[in-house]
Amino acid sequence: MTLKTVEQYYESLRQMNPTAYILGERVTSAIDHPLIRGQVAAVAQTYALAQDPEGKKLLVGESKLIGGEVSRFVKLYESVDDLLTKVKMLKLLSQRVGTCYMRCTGMDALNATAVVTYEVDRKYGTNYQERFLKYLKYVQENDLVVWSGVTDVKGDRSLRPSAQTDPDMYLHIVDKTKDGIIVRGAKIHQSGSLCAHEGLIMPSREMKEGDKDYAVCFAMPGDAKGIIHVYGRGTLEERAMEETDLGNIEFSKFCPLVIYDNVLVPWDRVFLCGEYEFAGQLVRAFSSYHRHSHGGCKSGVGDVLIGAAAAIAEYNGVADASHINAKLVEMIRTCQAMYGCCLAASVEANKSNSGVYLVDSALANTAKLYEGREYHEVLRLLVEIAGGLVADMPSEKDLRSPEIGHFIEKYLKGTADVPTEERMRMFRLIEKLTFETRDIVSNIHGGGSPEAHRMTLLRDTDLETKKELAKRLAGIKEKGGGENK
Amino acid sequence: MTLKTVEQYYESLRQMNPTAYILGERVTSAIDHPLIRGQVAAVAQTYALAQDPEGKKLLVGESKLIGGEVSRFVKLYESVDDLLTKVKMLKLLSQRVGTCYMRCTGMDALNATAVVTYEVDRKYGTNYQERFLKYLKYVQENDLVVWSGVTDVKGDRSLRPSAQTDPDMYLHIVDKTKDGIIVRGAKIHQSGSLCAHEGLIMPSREMKEGDKDYAVCFAMPGDAKGIIHVYGRGTLEERAMEETDLGNIEFSKFCPLVIYDNVLVPWDRVFLCGEYEFAGQLVRAFSSYHRHSHGGCKSGVGDVLIGAAAAIAEYNGVADASHINAKLVEMIRTCQAMYGCCLAASVEANKSNSGVYLVDSALANTAKLYEGREYHEVLRLLVEIAGGLVADMPSEKDLRSPEIGHFIEKYLKGTADVPTEERMRMFRLIEKLTFETRDIVSNIHGGGSPEAHRMTLLRDTDLETKKELAKRLAGIKEKGGGENK
Amino acid sequence: MTLKTVEQYYESLRQMNPTAYILGERVTSAIDHPLIRGQVAAVAQTYALAQDPEGKKLLVGESKLIGGEVSRFVKLYESVDDLLTKVKMLKLLSQRVGTCYMRCTGMDALNATAVVTYEVDRKYGTNYQERFLKYLKYVQENDLVVWSGVTDVKGDRSLRPSAQTDPDMYLHIVDKTKDGIIVRGAKIHQSGSLCAHEGLIMPSREMKEGDKDYAVCFAMPGDAKGIIHVYGRGTLEERAMEETDLGNIEFSKFCPLVIYDNVLVPWDRVFLCGEYEFAGQLVRAFSSYHRHSHGGCKSGVGDVLIGAAAAIAEYNGVADASHINAKLVEMIRTCQAMYGCCLAASVEANKSNSGVYLVDSALANTAKLYEGREYHEVLRLLVEIAGGLVADMPSEKDLRSPEIGHFIEKYLKGTADVPTEERMRMFRLIEKLTFETRDIVSNIHGGGSPEAHRMTLLRDTDLETKKELAKRLAGIKEKGGGENK
Amino acid sequence: MTLKTVEQYYESLRQMNPTAYILGERVTSAIDHPLIRGQVAAVAQTYALAQDPEGKKLLVGESKLIGGEVSRFVKLYESVDDLLTKVKMLKLLSQRVGTCYMRCTGMDALNATAVVTYEVDRKYGTNYQERFLKYLKYVQENDLVVWSGVTDVKGDRSLRPSAQTDPDMYLHIVDKTKDGIIVRGAKIHQSGSLCAHEGLIMPSREMKEGDKDYAVCFAMPGDAKGIIHVYGRGTLEERAMEETDLGNIEFSKFCPLVIYDNVLVPWDRVFLCGEYEFAGQLVRAFSSYHRHSHGGCKSGVGDVLIGAAAAIAEYNGVADASHINAKLVEMIRTCQAMYGCCLAASVEANKSNSGVYLVDSALANTAKLYEGREYHEVLRLLVEIAGGLVADMPSEKDLRSPEIGHFIEKYLKGTADVPTEERMRMFRLIEKLTFETRDIVSNIHGGGSPEAHRMTLLRDTDLETKKELAKRLAGIKEKGGGENK
Repeated sequence: MTLKTVEQYYESLRQMNPTAYILGERVTSAIDHPLIRGQVAAVAQTYALAQDPEGKKLLVGESKLIGGEVSRFVKLYESVDDLLTKVKMLKLLSQRVGTCYMRCTGMDALNATAVVTYEVDRKYGTNYQERFLKYLKYVQENDLVVWSGVTDVKGDRSLRPSAQTDPDMYLHIVDKTKDGIIVRGAKIHQSGSLCAHEGLIMPSREMKEGDKDYAVCFAMPGDAKGIIHVYGRGTLEERAMEETDLGNIEFSKFCPLVIYDNVLVPWDRVFLCGEYEFAGQLVRAFSSYHRHSHGGCKSGVGDVLIGAAAAIAEYNGVADASHINAKLVEMIRTCQAMYGCCLAASVEANKSNSGVYLVDSALANTAKLYEGREYHEVLRLLVEIAGGLVADMPSEKDLRSPEIGHFIEKYLKGTADVPTEERMRMFRLIEKLTFETRDIVSNIHGGGSPEAHRMTLLRDTDLETKKELAKRLAGIKEKGGGENK
Repeated sequence: MTLKTVEQYYESLRQMNPTAYILGERVTSAIDHPLIRGQVAAVAQTYALAQDPEGKKLLVGESKLIGGEVSRFVKLYESVDDLLTKVKMLKLLSQRVGTCYMRCTGMDALNATAVVTYEVDRKYGTNYQERFLKYLKYVQENDLVVWSGVTDVKGDRSLRPSAQTDPDMYLHIVDKTKDGIIVRGAKIHQSGSLCAHEGLIMPSREMKEGDKDYAVCFAMPGDAKGIIHVYGRGTLEERAMEETDLGNIEFSKFCPLVIYDNVLVPWDRVFLCGEYEFAGQLVRAFSSYHRHSHGGCKSGVGDVLIGAAAAIAEYNGVADASHINAKLVEMIRTCQAMYGCCLAASVEANKSNSGVYLVDSALANTAKLYEGREYHEVLRLLVEIAGGLVADMPSEKDLRSPEIGHFIEKYLKGTADVPTEERMRMFRLIEKLTFETRDIVSNIHGGGSPEAHRMTLLRDTDLETKKELAKRLAGIKEKGGGENK
Repeated sequence: MTLKTVEQYYESLRQMNPTAYILGERVTSAIDHPLIRGQVAAVAQTYALAQDPEGKKLLVGESKLIGGEVSRFVKLYESVDDLLTKVKMLKLLSQRVGTCYMRCTGMDALNATAVVTYEVDRKYGTNYQERFLKYLKYVQENDLVVWSGVTDVKGDRSLRPSAQTDPDMYLHIVDKTKDGIIVRGAKIHQSGSLCAHEGLIMPSREMKEGDKDYAVCFAMPGDAKGIIHVYGRGTLEERAMEETDLGNIEFSKFCPLVIYDNVLVPWDRVFLCGEYEFAGQLVRAFSSYHRHSHGGCKSGVGDVLIGAAAAIAEYNGVADASHINAKLVEMIRTCQAMYGCCLAASVEANKSNSGVYLVDSALANTAKLYEGREYHEVLRLLVEIAGGLVADMPSEKDLRSPEIGHFIEKYLKGTADVPTEERMRMFRLIEKLTFETRDIVSNIHGGGSPEAHRMTLLRDTDLETKKELAKRLAGIKEKGGGENK
Repeated sequence: MTLKTVEQYYESLRQMNPTAYILGERVTSAIDHPLIRGQVAAVAQTYALAQDPEGKKLLVGESKLIGGEVSRFVKLYESVDDLLTKVKMLKLLSQRVGTCYMRCTGMDALNATAVVTYEVDRKYGTNYQERFLKYLKYVQENDLVVWSGVTDVKGDRSLRPSAQTDPDMYLHIVDKTKDGIIVRGAKIHQSGSLCAHEGLIMPSREMKEGDKDYAVCFAMPGDAKGIIHVYGRGTLEERAMEETDLGNIEFSKFCPLVIYDNVLVPWDRVFLCGEYEFAGQLVRAFSSYHRHSHGGCKSGVGDVLIGAAAAIAEYNGVADASHINAKLVEMIRTCQAMYGCCLAASVEANKSNSGVYLVDSALANTAKLYEGREYHEVLRLLVEIAGGLVADMPSEKDLRSPEIGHFIEKYLKGTADVPTEERMRMFRLIEKLTFETRDIVSNIHGGGSPEAHRMTLLRDTDLETKKELAKRLAGIKEKGGGENK
């Protein structure tokens, strides 16, 4: 049986021993740490729903590689339908979890690696794809969680990797031995790395010949020697530490900095090694896939945002106000646009030489652009609908206080039929949904910054053909003579 | 052979004799009138491209009804693929024509009627669908152009049809005879009615019992007794009258008011007759289809807008400016969002009882909302990129003037390698694309007003389920007791 | 000497003994509490700058009442120039403090009370203004900090105060004695109440006859018997508790719920008592003033936002990118619009009967509407410019760690010439500026919700006159006959 | 008496004999041409209102130069109050005229020339200011209309003036004689040149040493030898030609190309002649003034837009719909923002060395940026509110037709109490307000393109100081050592 249960997932994590630091302290059982366990619980839902008869329809697919059922999170995109199902799976999970379950990053990285190793081999006669498929088989058979290691810390952004003052600002090969390669560098924003079994590491940009050593792709377990996870702090942490006023009572997110301090990677886990002209293709394939993932994910979170807005309007007694409805419509349309563009990017997918399907990049980037800007307005609308208590509601501790609890109970009441505690819980959820940095900044910068999406969209657009359309209608003769047809 | 050639199309129109008024004058050969012929030419492209090997792939489908090839403009939507192809067909045509070819209105009306006549018959044992399919067969066999007659003049919009001071503000049945029904009223914004053979007329809103006589759907030839087409005037007409400074040198649009002055409709052309509770369903089905059409159409026009922007930037010598690129990206993303949502609305379509597929209304309305607001910003961006000559460029007559022509040639030159006349033509096209009222107002009000799209989107959204998602995450117990799972 | 020094301010607060609860605990020396002292420090700046030769020009004015210099925070608006100076004073302070110094609330409440007590007296022959001016003199002579108590907790927002299930959802008079009135209720979002000496309490909405007991305005010291301050929790609190990763190293904000548990208010501190028809006028005057304050304040914070964006772009090595400049311009223009509209609202001010100047409400509300929506986009742009480290940067504790500090130092470095710690500090400031709930939600809901601003703006607009302008141009005869001139 | 009457204005124009071409034809009495006379009528309002007791308060000021009353359109800005009054004057006129009265261009050019001639003289000991003031005296004494000649045709925009293939793409000095200078070139978008007595011509951009001959400023009568006005065609011209369906029944706008074909300018009318480093200062001063003018003007037109929206909503029977109100508020707030920023730019004005006041450039450009983008949305909202008849309403000729007039009367009726003709007139006005190119494109490109406004705003912003504000709050030491205070 290749599909792990939730228990097996937790058990498998406990057998690992990653090097982790949280707020300056070395932590041993990281997955039990209050700042970590919320996301482990979120990832666990990917296992739980795969066992659920309804969830299974979306979460489980058939692997040609191992000849049986696998989690879609470790499956290749082998058809338009696979891509459509992916979007719906992510939407469903986000509706249930309301935050990040991080397995999409590995899924997208695995697929991008499948596409590009095929191309590299075709050009150089290397055997990266064989190595990779062997690795993928291992991942599928063990139903592993993989995180993707893409974003380098980057140092001075005006300089190429090889031109940085410190050569380690992009992860690179520092040595090659008969056993493998030695890599050094650091990857930032590594959502949920401590919930994962494996990391699949790849370049974060296109490379030129001088950057050869930075063109590297490989996989390693999260507790490999030399890998250090440093927790990145965000907002609302004291709530998790105290287990009160959580907002989202079960799930949360964290994004560490992961340092590779001279890590030895065995050759059979190396999938790109100096073929610099493929670095760009690899990160672009990953990015298109991942922007596609975002649209599914965040339209699912969007359903929670819309639901929270509708619920709090009701609790406040203003559910019937026409301006509330107008704001809900604005929220809905942005979420639909993101979802719609991702479905469309699936329908317009193309089969790569490797057999894996590539999403339509223009549509995937369009979805992400709406997430980057208009979705932030969706959050603002939620705050506008909810009211000022998002800012400064007294704590659950005040509610429980024998001295002043009755005042809180009394004065934070909304409509007569909703218990004060429920209203407080809804406000806490809204606070979490709109002010938890890891969740919100991800809307803007996850899958690359909006400027990257804009550049990609422009690059994906064939302006010449469009110019010809305009010229034809205006009656302008084509260059090279002859009337337009 | 059921597919008409362009020549056959023109010939068939010449055999008709519609009652038409243009700017106060009775006109006999309307299709040759300079204010009309541009749109006839646009419609003719739907015939021309159906004969073209490439165009045929999108424009021609298989009819089960007559067992052979038919134009998709008279075909039922019998699969998701039919709906996807429709979007692409409309996009292609718009890219070629840059304005309206109006056959989508009839296509959408035919499909809506097919869906709803089935339902009416099921409830009342009527035989509307049989009548309708017989009529559709006739339309398919003769490859006819059908316009849809939906939008009533409406009078006082705060009043229902039957409550208006003048009962004719919505089209209605004034009498029934053994030969048929007599109808009276007027439909506004009837894009291209004089380019069509037939009109398919239906209610423009939901009806209550008191509005029974307004719940009527029927088909009539455009030159039937009592039907009067009154040209609606728009901007840029003097250009068409003088055949100069046309912008779009071949194609244009017109939208008459069509008056039904006691028109007798034979029973076999009546498809709804008083079953008021189906009026809303009929117009909603039409509207969803038509908002879906708009996304395909206007994303095709959008390619012309983007192409014109890129071309004029080049002609002005600023193609490399980064702010031009940033504006192009804004234009592109809105067009992609519209296109993407319409593809998605196709993928998420549902089969109705009649066997005809209904698009996903939420996604179709989302596309239209982007057309209604953001697409107007796309037009503004085009003007911003192009520059002030969109406002006030001297005329082609000035260019041709023996006295001052050389000044125009000299001073309206942009970059050295583009002839002045070509630059002028591009500016004229841009003027047409951004300031021709029938084209532009259609972005906002075509397929219903934005407020209608907003209300529809809200109605299509299941807020209750979304509220439950939020409550579950916040730890709020469901009503009726019990913990959330 | 009426102007207090910083030391005198602190000393005066220490002599008070307010009842305060923070996260469920009764706190005695509240102003030293880590969650409170940041805002006390911010308020202290209003004293510090009044002593500064440059600051004094804006912060100190002349009082006719006491015949000498007073802080503008306790001065009446006696001219257009007073209002212009107020905007500039608030902008200056916000530039220095980067968050809330809360004295504007009292300043606006004092002025609104001056305006309305005059009107009430004129109608009823009461002596509220005399009482109020005596009180104001006391405030001026002692240079006190006053908070305004406006926003009631409101319960079910669809119900009027007197129609609530619990009559205490709006603060009201529960008894009158020879010594004064007894009031009960609770006011929410009471920015910085624990930094103030006095509270000036007023209705939060217009009242009808049945709401008579809710039409009450009075002043009380913050440590009066029956007044309970309950800290409202926001984001980023653990940073203040631990004194690390503060972002804004000196200043912060808090907004308690303040409960009035049967508080006795002596008659000479009662300024409205049942004259329900003046409740609306009072809150509207306050609101216009306060929206006017926001524009000054938030355009000053805006300078910090813009400066932080420019600084981090430089630290990241992308200061020269054209898209960064384009985003800075968007940030700047919104801040200028807010600032400009508030200057204009000052210029267009009108003198009330009391002699106090009323700002132009339409312009003040317009400024606030830009703050409510576009300013949120300014925050998003700051995050977009800054990059993902706003979400999840490792802690200062990691930087200080003997084990991993060198990694943090190394990998969080940006451009070569900026120390890592400075870059980290700037990211922390940006995190604070964009994700601290009390600060951010205030943009949206401070001074009333955006919907309130919209309704006010509509009410302030004379649509009839504008309709006549349009009719005249269109050649439509005026009603009542006669040609338009 | 220096203030002309309307009759004197018309008479004075009739005594001129400009060389004018309209649609390829040489026209002699241009001001009577149907495409021209509407704007002459608009300019005439600047004379009419100066005679009106109410209008005079805003339109007439005191000239130190001639020691008496002058039209503000030829007066220098000698105080903040002059600038405030200017904004209000323009708003009033736009409310009355609903389109362009063009005298603001000359007013702004005169003031810019006054500022800069002073500076040039100070540097070079030239006597430009003396010449200019003599000229201005002449203009004031004769109450002349002056148009500003700024925008060159520009050719290839990537090239400087002196680098163009054709050296005439920017107006320049081609010879100097003892009588004066000979200039050649062409200025585009010359709003209302044929309504003016004089043109004041200046560079359209900053110049470098190689562009010396392009650094020229001078004044000439509109009928001087070698000056050719070529009408620039826009939308809706056939209405003016036929005098039907005008929309705005009295006023309209035109913007010719004005060619300078070796025009001899006498030395006493030359105000800059080769001092290239002042070209930029001159055009920037003009531009700031003119962006300031736009805010006053377009907020006045905005009142017409808002009034038309409110009127048509009433005529359609939907005045009470909450979504209509929401849209009106959006329209209002943009107009208020433009108006507010221009008042503020007046209040923040600085006195130049010449004694003339310079508006605050940042605030003036901010106003223009809102006009460039958000104001276009205001137009869209008007169309959204009005409905589809903006696109395609039958003509007044149809209404007058004996055959179908009764149908038009019947079917274009809205609410019962508004005559059909009035509703039609309002729709025509809305069509004019939203689709007349010269009016609408001016919102975007008048006073420079939005990109120019953005660059100006960035240049006006002191980013360094703002960065220091942020660093201080973050606890970052200033460069050069020392703790921040």
